[in-house]
Amino acid sequence: QNDLLSATGTTVFTVMSALAVQHGAINLGQGFPDYEGPEDVVRAAAEALLDNRNQYPPLTGLPELRQAVAAANRRFYGLEIDPNAEVVVTSGATEALAASLMAVINPGDEVVLLEPLYDTYLPVVKLLGAVPRVVRLSPPKWELPRAELAAAFGPKTKAILLNSPMNPAGKVFTAAELAYVAELCQRHDAYAVCDEVYEHLTFDGWKHIPLMTLPGMRERCMRIGSAGKTFSLTGWKVGYITADRSLAANVAKAHQMLTFTTAPNLQRAVAVGLAKDDAYFESLSTELQARRDLLAAGLVELGFGVLPTQGSYFITCDFTPLGFAGDDIAFCRHLTETAKVTAIPVSAFYAGADAPKHFVRFAFCKREAVLEEALQRMRAWK
Amino acid sequence: QNDLLSATGTTVFTVMSALAVQHGAINLGQGFPDYEGPEDVVRAAAEALLDNRNQYPPLTGLPELRQAVAAANRRFYGLEIDPNAEVVVTSGATEALAASLMAVINPGDEVVLLEPLYDTYLPVVKLLGAVPRVVRLSPPKWELPRAELAAAFGPKTKAILLNSPMNPAGKVFTAAELAYVAELCQRHDAYAVCDEVYEHLTFDGWKHIPLMTLPGMRERCMRIGSAGKTFSLTGWKVGYITADRSLAANVAKAHQMLTFTTAPNLQRAVAVGLAKDDAYFESLSTELQARRDLLAAGLVELGFGVLPTQGSYFITCDFTPLGFAGDDIAFCRHLTETAKVTAIPVSAFYAGADAPKHFVRFAFCKREAVLEEALQRMRAWK
Ligand SMILES: CSCCC(=O)C(=O)O
Ligand SMILES: CSCCC(=O)C(=O)O
Repeated sequence: QNDLLSATGTTVFTVMSALAVQHGAINLGQGFPDYEGPEDVVRAAAEALLDNRNQYPPLTGLPELRQAVAAANRRFYGLEIDPNAEVVVTSGATEALAASLMAVINPGDEVVLLEPLYDTYLPVVKLLGAVPRVVRLSPPKWELPRAELAAAFGPKTKAILLNSPMNPAGKVFTAAELAYVAELCQRHDAYAVCDEVYEHLTFDGWKHIPLMTLPGMRERCMRIGSAGKTFSLTGWKVGYITADRSLAANVAKAHQMLTFTTAPNLQRAVAVGLAKDDAYFESLSTELQARRDLLAAGLVELGFGVLPTQGSYFITCDFTPLGFAGDDIAFCRHLTETAKVTAIPVSAFYAGADAPKHFVRFAFCKREAVLEEALQRMRAWK
Repeated sequence: QNDLLSATGTTVFTVMSALAVQHGAINLGQGFPDYEGPEDVVRAAAEALLDNRNQYPPLTGLPELRQAVAAANRRFYGLEIDPNAEVVVTSGATEALAASLMAVINPGDEVVLLEPLYDTYLPVVKLLGAVPRVVRLSPPKWELPRAELAAAFGPKTKAILLNSPMNPAGKVFTAAELAYVAELCQRHDAYAVCDEVYEHLTFDGWKHIPLMTLPGMRERCMRIGSAGKTFSLTGWKVGYITADRSLAANVAKAHQMLTFTTAPNLQRAVAVGLAKDDAYFESLSTELQARRDLLAAGLVELGFGVLPTQGSYFITCDFTPLGFAGDDIAFCRHLTETAKVTAIPVSAFYAGADAPKHFVRFAFCKREAVLEEALQRMRAWK
């Protein structure tokens, strides 16, 4: 069997979600909302099912969704995208990530990654035969370590994988940081796979800037969006890649090998979602920000060292002030078993063995009553 | 960019479907029904959407669908499968194929393939770093070439990829042929990726036999099924892999890297479908057999050299008796442009340049009126 997969443990999200169920814990681990997405979007999906949208759609996606993705690129970022040649709809952002990397990587190429990183990044890069070059960001500010990043680029660099807003750090990359990344990509003739699934989930006036909008980057970026995250429907697994026509052709072929297409009724509904008015997108982040504030205030009060969250579903915090003697994995297990609240150990987002072991990640994409109850449980436990 | 994908053309199914639209042709190319799947299954999918089944289901699939897959394995083939450890639900059979191969292949391993073959097989095998060993079956009987097959197995063989019922050949492998394959797998300690998406679409008393049911093969097979093909809902992209627990763990990890999960409302509906009574499965093949007979009789009458179809959606036939001077690609283009009927050139299912060039494939999974009209157009054209 494949050595790399055999050596890989079950994903931390499955492990912790199972542990939460086992102990009747409130699951603030895996990042999925416990509330539903917009009713009109869900209804559109149901209507499309009954309206016979049940056979293969085109390989790159239904025209109406590709048009909606192009329109969203124009509306939010001023990007002019050809819906017929520069959009590929995928079965979720996970597939989008695999397809984007597969489209450009040849075995032996190097790919630059930023740590902490989402847990499929590294295995996917390795399974495609590429050599990862991991650059570490440091809390609490998770600033781009410019010298280390520059040193990670070299003659074999094929691509950088950039996640902004960043999971689990909750960081939104600044214009200056993105300009630095863009300059390196151009200097080394590298592509950028841009995991921007939390693009609409930013707070406190932070605005997401796609790397693709920077000068010289239009032809280098594969920009990944997620209907799951944008419409609070994480199970739908509808993603979309925006890429220059010179890249999109290979992305579409990779997509052909990986899934070929995605359910047309869900595609139709996501097109309805992307056409929603500005008020929808504003309230999406405003409401999420209120949930973040509720959970962050409670965690501060409990004594956690809470790091700032500029975007995403997640708060990272240091549990050492609570006086727990043990690493983040032990802490998450203990919290689940005794407080009946589940978080994710942040060391799971690190490749190396020398990962920080005193941070945990809480998801705040939950109903306020659930967040309150989780805090109440932790207060009682403390 | 990736050399292999850059060198791969757009899939023949997309090319021919686009050509059909362009010329207003009846599309008997790409294999999708133009009729709908069972109403209760579609309704179950719509109801599950409105019933809040819209967040991440478990990585390996909803428990109810895994149980339904295990029950179907018992009911149709007498296979005892643990729904908790031996079923992985995927985003369609295409993903199932990629995940199964990814689960076992290490770079440099050899994979045995049978030609003619579905057009993603060879690129996926190569993208995973494996070396394909292609063995050719010959029309009209597409018998297993035993000596060539045995010669293709060797010390580096990791797996065979077997498609039965076979697309485009319409062949159902016999018990004797399967026993020969099983013996080779055991002798060379190889796995078998079994693409059995047409398992319920067999005719004239032919019965599909999963390779997994043969002695010694329970632990070696990754058996792939497709809700799209079994319920005439090809756009849903719900597939399922049945594999021994010793294999399923790595398959699940590969699935995690490729898509992670599949829409829960569609999973719920497929579970409803798999529980349908025997009459459903019987009428599925009986009705399809009638469509096959209608199209085959018409093609014979038109003068095509029609090969037998024991299973699948497809008839392969020789067009040389019609006196067309040109290869299968030219014939399909000519037929689309002048008769307004679209078929697929069978050479697209061959890896080598020395493919037969006088066969085309017609899909008969279409309404009878559509098949009649296609035949009428060809009669007028001839
Ligand atoms: C696909 S399961 C993980 C969901 C997620 O994005 C996260 O929790 O980080
Ligand atoms: C996924 S498009 C191809 C459909 C099919 O199985 C075929 O036409 O052979």
